[in-house]
Amino acid sequence: MDWPERFNDCSNNRLEDSEIAAIMRVAAAEEALSLAAGEPFAALYPVEHLRESFMRALSSDLPIWGYSNTRAGIPSLRKWIEEWMRSDGLLAEWVTSDNIFITNGSQEGLSLLSECFLDPGDAVLVESPSYPEAFGVFRKFGVECLSVPLLPDGPDVDAMEAILAKHKVKFFYTIPTFQNPTGFSTSDEKKRRILDIAKKHDFLILEDDPYRNLTFEGSPGGTYLHAAGDDERVIYLGSFSKIIAPGLRCGWVISPAPVTEKLIKLRVMGTLCLPELLQNAIMDFVSGIDLPKHLEALSDTYRGHRDALILALREHACPEGLEITTPGGGFFLWGRVPWIRDMSEFAYFAIRNGKVAIMPGDIFFPENGQGIDTIRLSFSKVIPAMAEEGAKRLGEALRKFRIVQEEKKSE
Amino acid sequence: MDWPERFNDCSNNRLEDSEIAAIMRVAAAEEALSLAAGEPFAALYPVEHLRESFMRALSSDLPIWGYSNTRAGIPSLRKWIEEWMRSDGLLAEWVTSDNIFITNGSQEGLSLLSECFLDPGDAVLVESPSYPEAFGVFRKFGVECLSVPLLPDGPDVDAMEAILAKHKVKFFYTIPTFQNPTGFSTSDEKKRRILDIAKKHDFLILEDDPYRNLTFEGSPGGTYLHAAGDDERVIYLGSFSKIIAPGLRCGWVISPAPVTEKLIKLRVMGTLCLPELLQNAIMDFVSGIDLPKHLEALSDTYRGHRDALILALREHACPEGLEITTPGGGFFLWGRVPWIRDMSEFAYFAIRNGKVAIMPGDIFFPENGQGIDTIRLSFSKVIPAMAEEGAKRLGEALRKFRIVQEEKKSE
Repeated sequence: MDWPERFNDCSNNRLEDSEIAAIMRVAAAEEALSLAAGEPFAALYPVEHLRESFMRALSSDLPIWGYSNTRAGIPSLRKWIEEWMRSDGLLAEWVTSDNIFITNGSQEGLSLLSECFLDPGDAVLVESPSYPEAFGVFRKFGVECLSVPLLPDGPDVDAMEAILAKHKVKFFYTIPTFQNPTGFSTSDEKKRRILDIAKKHDFLILEDDPYRNLTFEGSPGGTYLHAAGDDERVIYLGSFSKIIAPGLRCGWVISPAPVTEKLIKLRVMGTLCLPELLQNAIMDFVSGIDLPKHLEALSDTYRGHRDALILALREHACPEGLEITTPGGGFFLWGRVPWIRDMSEFAYFAIRNGKVAIMPGDIFFPENGQGIDTIRLSFSKVIPAMAEEGAKRLGEALRKFRIVQEEKKSE
Repeated sequence: MDWPERFNDCSNNRLEDSEIAAIMRVAAAEEALSLAAGEPFAALYPVEHLRESFMRALSSDLPIWGYSNTRAGIPSLRKWIEEWMRSDGLLAEWVTSDNIFITNGSQEGLSLLSECFLDPGDAVLVESPSYPEAFGVFRKFGVECLSVPLLPDGPDVDAMEAILAKHKVKFFYTIPTFQNPTGFSTSDEKKRRILDIAKKHDFLILEDDPYRNLTFEGSPGGTYLHAAGDDERVIYLGSFSKIIAPGLRCGWVISPAPVTEKLIKLRVMGTLCLPELLQNAIMDFVSGIDLPKHLEALSDTYRGHRDALILALREHACPEGLEITTPGGGFFLWGRVPWIRDMSEFAYFAIRNGKVAIMPGDIFFPENGQGIDTIRLSFSKVIPAMAEEGAKRLGEALRKFRIVQEEKKSE
């Protein structure tokens, strides 16, 4: 069978390999100490509470075994999300639970929204760097990702205006709070400027906000959704993956009614419905716990991980040229090693020769050849006792890599 | 906001409403006795066993809370499916568990396979009548559904050849066993002829087979997958929805390795991964029960439902002109009422004036205006005690509708 002749244009030409997954596979095979994983610390999954919530949902009379009647997700959970986000001041006035659509994680939200809006030849704005599996979804639809450089206080609005002078875009995809991979947050002032630009150039904003509740200091800032008010151009993506557990596969999209209607049709065609058991267990969980306390405990632990890793890196890896920033929340440290000319090469070198895994920063840039000296380090799963060993291995790997590079040069 | 200007071509022009869902909504609102639902009988969900399986999965050390490492589904369940289907003689030699890809129900399989193969302007062959949510998926990709009339022993191969003389098609979508909506099964002889045609005209076969294990008499026949042998042109879709519970959202796709690789990439872009808890609970369930006995019990009950409904219809509705066939398994009776010129009109009339819901057959035809006198009746959820009342209501609705029609004519 000549499969490429049968596959369509998308599967032949527009399906990218996940570079993150490729590195994680090699890291696992080599049993490297991982500073690379972008997932929560497993010890923080509230397993006992979740078990109880599942058992209650399983023993209830809820209609969990049949096809779901609610293609958008169970009403109780959508209502709960509405009330929770409203009490945190994150919603626009127009949002009701009818505008909330439950997804199999935010990735499904990104995918369905792309399916709803994107035609081949369209362009979208993305932060540079940003989450590469989002670029992958957009590009699957034959769309160009235009790069807006991300600064510590948010996207470079002058660069954004320069792009918009030349291109019409469908939307701007942004992770405004403790961004992946940088940990940067967009200031509220900048959010307002970007909303003005969005209005002027008439594009939508996709606000992907999974890290907001993991704030270590101060406030995570407001949402674009709230700041936009009556202007219904912000579509918000939330997730329980980082604050409860990603295995529950539960996120949500908040969108104006005409968009939600399309999402429901796309859901029917794509999967008919999602399993209600999971949504009911989450509903039981969130309504039964002290959520602020739970989120504070998560933030306390992750803050401790961040601080221990930064301390250890300063001692063992910064002397080898690593420069890092200190994020106010989330999972990630962003940095660079100015003397490295190919961080992906170093990543594989470090796994194989130093038994330590890092994520090369270049894979987070929409264009090839950018950010070749940048690096993402994740502290989420790195307990303080591992931080010291991880930083030592990273420092040692940098030292060895520099020697190899210098030997190459002198050849 | 002018949303249609923002939506893409697909969401503006190629997203169909589900006519099945529309009728079910009205039927529910009117509290009609339903002979329309295409879902299992809830009393047959093995709830006690499933609860135990979930509790074991929840109490285990299985990695159910994090992101799944196995984008294709958990290895144990894929292995179990391989062994089960092989022992039933349903697989081709080339199939291993690596070719099995777990889905959120067969709808996700149809959707991902469409995403893999279909470009706008392509054509596919479908049975006429067949499952309309499959047409909806194919058409979402801008594809034409070419109708092959379905006869009681399977597709009309002469009609198929006539279409293929004029059109190149990507695949033939077929439900070979106790088809929805007809209950017809394709004979093994015809499967072989169709495989020859597929080879000659070089298209794939998508074999959607969720009803196979609900056989009331004799054998459900073999699979295209097995009959094709080394010729890797059959992609098989299986499902636990009809034999365990649809709320588990678990089906599977069996495909050659190059296709499975694409499905995995499409999974990552679409949802990252599915919730492993459900797969682990299903694995516990299927390995802990006497499956043949479970399937026999289901078939016994559904056979009783079929027989009671047929008996009641013969007494109360056939005298009003209903003609029905007797399926050897599955959920559905297929029939016609020759004097009716618009079954959809009758369906809404029957719900509102007779408090009984049926599924008009015309919505199962790929082209408008076909099968206007056809009807699908589902016995799956109709217990014998309801069958009598349902048949009476249907007979009465037919009688009233005929009077209304005759009055209209004489006006």
